[in-house]
Amino acid sequence: MPMKKFINAPENLTPELLEGFAVAFGHKIALQGKTVVRAKPKSTDKVAIVTLGGAGHEPALSGFVGEGMLDASVVGDIFAAPGAPAVVQALTAIKRDAGTLLVILNHPGDVLAGNMAFEMATGQGVNVQKVLTHEDISAGHDAPMENRRGLVGCVPLYKIAGAAAEAGKGLDEVVAVTQRFNENMRTLAVAVTPATHPANAAVIGEIADDEMEVGMGQHGEGGGGIMKLATADETARIMLDKLLNTMDVGPGDKMFAMINGSGATTMMEQLIVLRAVKKLLDAKGIELARSMAGEFLTVQEMGGFQMCVAKLDDELIELYDAPCDTPGLTVK
Amino acid sequence: MPMKKFINAPENLTPELLEGFAVAFGHKIALQGKTVVRAKPKSTDKVAIVTLGGAGHEPALSGFVGEGMLDASVVGDIFAAPGAPAVVQALTAIKRDAGTLLVILNHPGDVLAGNMAFEMATGQGVNVQKVLTHEDISAGHDAPMENRRGLVGCVPLYKIAGAAAEAGKGLDEVVAVTQRFNENMRTLAVAVTPATHPANAAVIGEIADDEMEVGMGQHGEGGGGIMKLATADETARIMLDKLLNTMDVGPGDKMFAMINGSGATTMMEQLIVLRAVKKLLDAKGIELARSMAGEFLTVQEMGGFQMCVAKLDDELIELYDAPCDTPGLTVK
Repeated sequence: MPMKKFINAPENLTPELLEGFAVAFGHKIALQGKTVVRAKPKSTDKVAIVTLGGAGHEPALSGFVGEGMLDASVVGDIFAAPGAPAVVQALTAIKRDAGTLLVILNHPGDVLAGNMAFEMATGQGVNVQKVLTHEDISAGHDAPMENRRGLVGCVPLYKIAGAAAEAGKGLDEVVAVTQRFNENMRTLAVAVTPATHPANAAVIGEIADDEMEVGMGQHGEGGGGIMKLATADETARIMLDKLLNTMDVGPGDKMFAMINGSGATTMMEQLIVLRAVKKLLDAKGIELARSMAGEFLTVQEMGGFQMCVAKLDDELIELYDAPCDTPGLTVK
Repeated sequence: MPMKKFINAPENLTPELLEGFAVAFGHKIALQGKTVVRAKPKSTDKVAIVTLGGAGHEPALSGFVGEGMLDASVVGDIFAAPGAPAVVQALTAIKRDAGTLLVILNHPGDVLAGNMAFEMATGQGVNVQKVLTHEDISAGHDAPMENRRGLVGCVPLYKIAGAAAEAGKGLDEVVAVTQRFNENMRTLAVAVTPATHPANAAVIGEIADDEMEVGMGQHGEGGGGIMKLATADETARIMLDKLLNTMDVGPGDKMFAMINGSGATTMMEQLIVLRAVKKLLDAKGIELARSMAGEFLTVQEMGGFQMCVAKLDDELIELYDAPCDTPGLTVK
């Protein structure tokens, strides 16, 4: 079957979707080349939050630029990291005495570009610290760092970091609380149907008709957890057990849970799975204190979802609840 | 291929997804049986806005209950209208001197249940008026009313109605401004890949590999506009031309445009199409004053989108811009 996507020339995918972002959300974000920045920049006495990553995951990552979350998102081509020079440019453009936090998702290209840009910007006198997200447990929580991908947990992490910055916390404090959430969070993905790479029409992540794959990455990288299709409740149980097994949580603890649709899995299904997660946590005496369902970080039209959970504390809840105003998430 | 959805027993789809809604959005909405209401009810001196419709289109319709939009959404089973008694119950529960606006989308079951409930509630002394949305132009804007379906235009219409009610306008005024937006709006859908009915696994809306169908309804009903696949820009041109041909708009006018993803069509594509709409309107001297892209009213995992446009005026823009806080749309 030919690819059935509403696109024009493949080489224009990223600039065209960014143009569309500016049309739909021009009151929240603006374009500086292929970097998405806030329409109304934050005052320079507050810490800036910057991230980088490929396009094709909309609304992520650029959909979380705006009040209370990111100050800038440096955009690469579809599923590809941006070059280090673009990241350096963004870091120097946003330079401020308060400092900048650079959030990098653990994928080889992003880490390479992010680390190079970090070194170069630091060498140019930019006050920048970095946090690397790596919350995928598909290879095990103790797996070598290269096997622990940064998945949708970046979204609540941007929220925590952005709220800490808006609250006027210093760079060290912003890094500390962001890093605490980073260490507290875990994500596991499941896929049932493949996606099509919009630039080259390659099918990514094919799965047998009666199977699902737990541990799938966000570009269709295999996760190894191929199993028979299961109900929503059974899938929720399998995945939540794997996540909780890597965490130190018990009765009385407060948790965050997020069901992030990968593309073709409906909000109807996300809500049914989230309901199952709540029942499972209730049975363990763990409070589901905050939760989200929706499409935040997608893998084109892939069927499946990412389940992200995190242990919360009072400070994290306060930051999570703080207002924000971005294309992908608005909290009043 | 078996249906690959994360569900449990088909007969529990609607109660389970509503339970999930209450988990994810308990700070915004609450359940009264199968009716979704605001977590914090609006003061009774303001007009209430109520709607009804089947589940399976999440976030619509119940995702638009909350501050500044709907007060109640009476939910049917998947793709099925609720019964009239449930609608009567919602109308009597929310009864107030200020009155209630009942918004009905033009589909036979919804119209039957909505009209019956309207008569019964009126007979019981409830002060209620109704607005019927019917903005689909696939059969022609002058087609018999039964062929003019109510599509995603209900979402901005709920926004206009809810904002007018929050502003303290009387029922006649709320109806008048809502009806003006209703008459101003037009929608046309296009589909490229089918959906699966989650309760019975029936495939709905099958389309040949190299084709798309313009005019598709939101349950896979055929639209008659089968044509060869086209680029995003070409599809946008074909659809916008059809929409504008039914409208009295020209240079200097202000327009609203919305690209609503049906399910499997990515936000990347929605943004690329919206960008094309802006270019086409610019070339005609028409101002794209407000726009939206995202999944608001879905048809399970169908590939395609609905393009909704409306002529705006200053009052409609003011109401559109007013704050709201619902699961599916938040405006600060």
